Amino acid sequence: VIKPGHLMQSEIGEQPEVLQRIIDSGLDDIRAVAAAIRERSPRFVLFAARGTSDHACLYAKYLVEIVLGLPAGLVSPSTMTSYGSRPDLRDVLVVVVSQSGGSPDLIETATTARACGAIVLAVTNAPNSPLAAAADLHLDVHAGVEHAVAATKSYTGFAVPAAAAVQVERKSEMVELAQRYRFADRLILTGRGYSYPTVREAALKLMETSYVAALAFSGADLMHGPLAMIDQNSPVLAVVPEGIGAVAMRPVLERLQSGLADLTIFGGASSLPFATSGFRIEHELPEDLSPLVDIIALQHLACEMAIARGFDPDAPRGLLKVTQTW
Amino acid sequence: VIKPGHLMQSEIGEQPEVLQRIIDSGLDDIRAVAAAIRERSPRFVLFAARGTSDHACLYAKYLVEIVLGLPAGLVSPSTMTSYGSRPDLRDVLVVVVSQSGGSPDLIETATTARACGAIVLAVTNAPNSPLAAAADLHLDVHAGVEHAVAATKSYTGFAVPAAAAVQVERKSEMVELAQRYRFADRLILTGRGYSYPTVREAALKLMETSYVAALAFSGADLMHGPLAMIDQNSPVLAVVPEGIGAVAMRPVLERLQSGLADLTIFGGASSLPFATSGFRIEHELPEDLSPLVDIIALQHLACEMAIARGFDPDAPRGLLKVTQTW
Repeated sequence: VIKPGHLMQSEIGEQPEVLQRIIDSGLDDIRAVAAAIRERSPRFVLFAARGTSDHACLYAKYLVEIVLGLPAGLVSPSTMTSYGSRPDLRDVLVVVVSQSGGSPDLIETATTARACGAIVLAVTNAPNSPLAAAADLHLDVHAGVEHAVAATKSYTGFAVPAAAAVQVERKSEMVELAQRYRFADRLILTGRGYSYPTVREAALKLMETSYVAALAFSGADLMHGPLAMIDQNSPVLAVVPEGIGAVAMRPVLERLQSGLADLTIFGGASSLPFATSGFRIEHELPEDLSPLVDIIALQHLACEMAIARGFDPDAPRGLLKVTQTW
Repeated sequence: VIKPGHLMQSEIGEQPEVLQRIIDSGLDDIRAVAAAIRERSPRFVLFAARGTSDHACLYAKYLVEIVLGLPAGLVSPSTMTSYGSRPDLRDVLVVVVSQSGGSPDLIETATTARACGAIVLAVTNAPNSPLAAAADLHLDVHAGVEHAVAATKSYTGFAVPAAAAVQVERKSEMVELAQRYRFADRLILTGRGYSYPTVREAALKLMETSYVAALAFSGADLMHGPLAMIDQNSPVLAVVPEGIGAVAMRPVLERLQSGLADLTIFGGASSLPFATSGFRIEHELPEDLSPLVDIIALQHLACEMAIARGFDPDAPRGLLKVTQTW
């Protein structure tokens, strides 16, 4: 008998290895792709993806805007695939991300973007996939075969293996937190800057495995409307690693505390005093690498909440591993 | 005694007038601004906004990508305001949208974007606001003073007054639908293409007035994960005006119907057969103008749900009219 969540738990635990594998055998490819892109000197970067890959893109968008100083956007694939838009994409780098490399709308987006003048980079976990073939450039995330429907390994396809290994070991704390949220029907997640993609991805994992109504907002957007929805019985979960995002989150945490919200914080020393229950982020990674590691505890939480509720996170209702979207 | 929802209802009803006012007295300004932008021939368009204005931007992003064929993105304001990013914005049009024109982070975004070489257009309901002063160009949405905290008038600041007037008259149908959802704790909204901003904005209005956990997904993203969350007791509300978006939504509606979801559809003849309960969209507007009108029935729904639940939508918990975000 295979236990519920067996696959998801084992793939959560593989992430440090995946990160190490990229450092050991992926860097040459990454450098070659970077050189090819630099040669074309793109002025803008567009990302196209769905689901979990879309959240990896949101993280990459922050890196492109802040570290590279290039304007960036997330494309709405339907504008090219359904509405027939043919935008002028000269000087534009289009990054298409798909674990399977098999999503028909993303393959079409890559093909159309090339025809419109873009340089197209496909990032997949499947070097022989049609998406890899349709792009100018390809990067493999080296995550190995992903069996779980709720993808976790292919989300953190980059650096920082040791800090990731520490997070993998925090499973028992997440088993406890899952008990705390056992009967919650909704959960509000919040973070700012680099941590916004983390809370978006955590919300998706919670929805697809334990069916809780998980709503993720940037701290700034939370103050515009959704704040009204929070009462003492609507738990809030904030991700606040030390750094600029933590400074920007401070008024949000103060507001939540003064409203007596039930506030769980994954954060550093500066933010934990605002928490009803706090989980200290132990690593000392710079803020821009923190998302690679912080998500792991939340993946555990999603898996454990599903199990606590009597669901099997390896068999979410009505989902297939490759989603066909046209 | 002023009845709960009085302000919100009266501002929902003012939308046809606002639209007419723009046609009567706003077109000259719009043409002048368009000419000034054309002269600079921007290659890329970025939008910056929060809350309801962000959803207006999402609609505008579809128009820019499809009608103008320009790549576009929604900026994460914190990259410039908190993380100090100074992107290369030559050839970039930055559109900053704020009802009040007073949001400090958006004023800073406008100032920084100009310093980085962008042409900056502010769209506000306050011509004398600091945001209007900080931009190269300004457009007034002519919505008049907005008293309700849950902004509705400034969302539809454009065309099509007659169709809007018809929608305003559908209030009684929404009173009934609000009774159907009286005890629902969550509500899933979905639409594709031009209707995706409509369901995002409807979800925000539902959250801020009636505190329901309202989750909006593009039809494509719904198939990646969140679908697992839907059972026979999680009502789904789809917005499907006739057009390309309706064709793209068809597999989503088929999937929801086969899963026995409780599915309310605001749509045309081609989609209504999939509905548990259907509301016919009567207007014959082209799909790309439909969002201006379709939102109105959903604003009514948010207002009526709040009232049915004993809340006053004119006084949402913990919200101020101008949100200060840094």
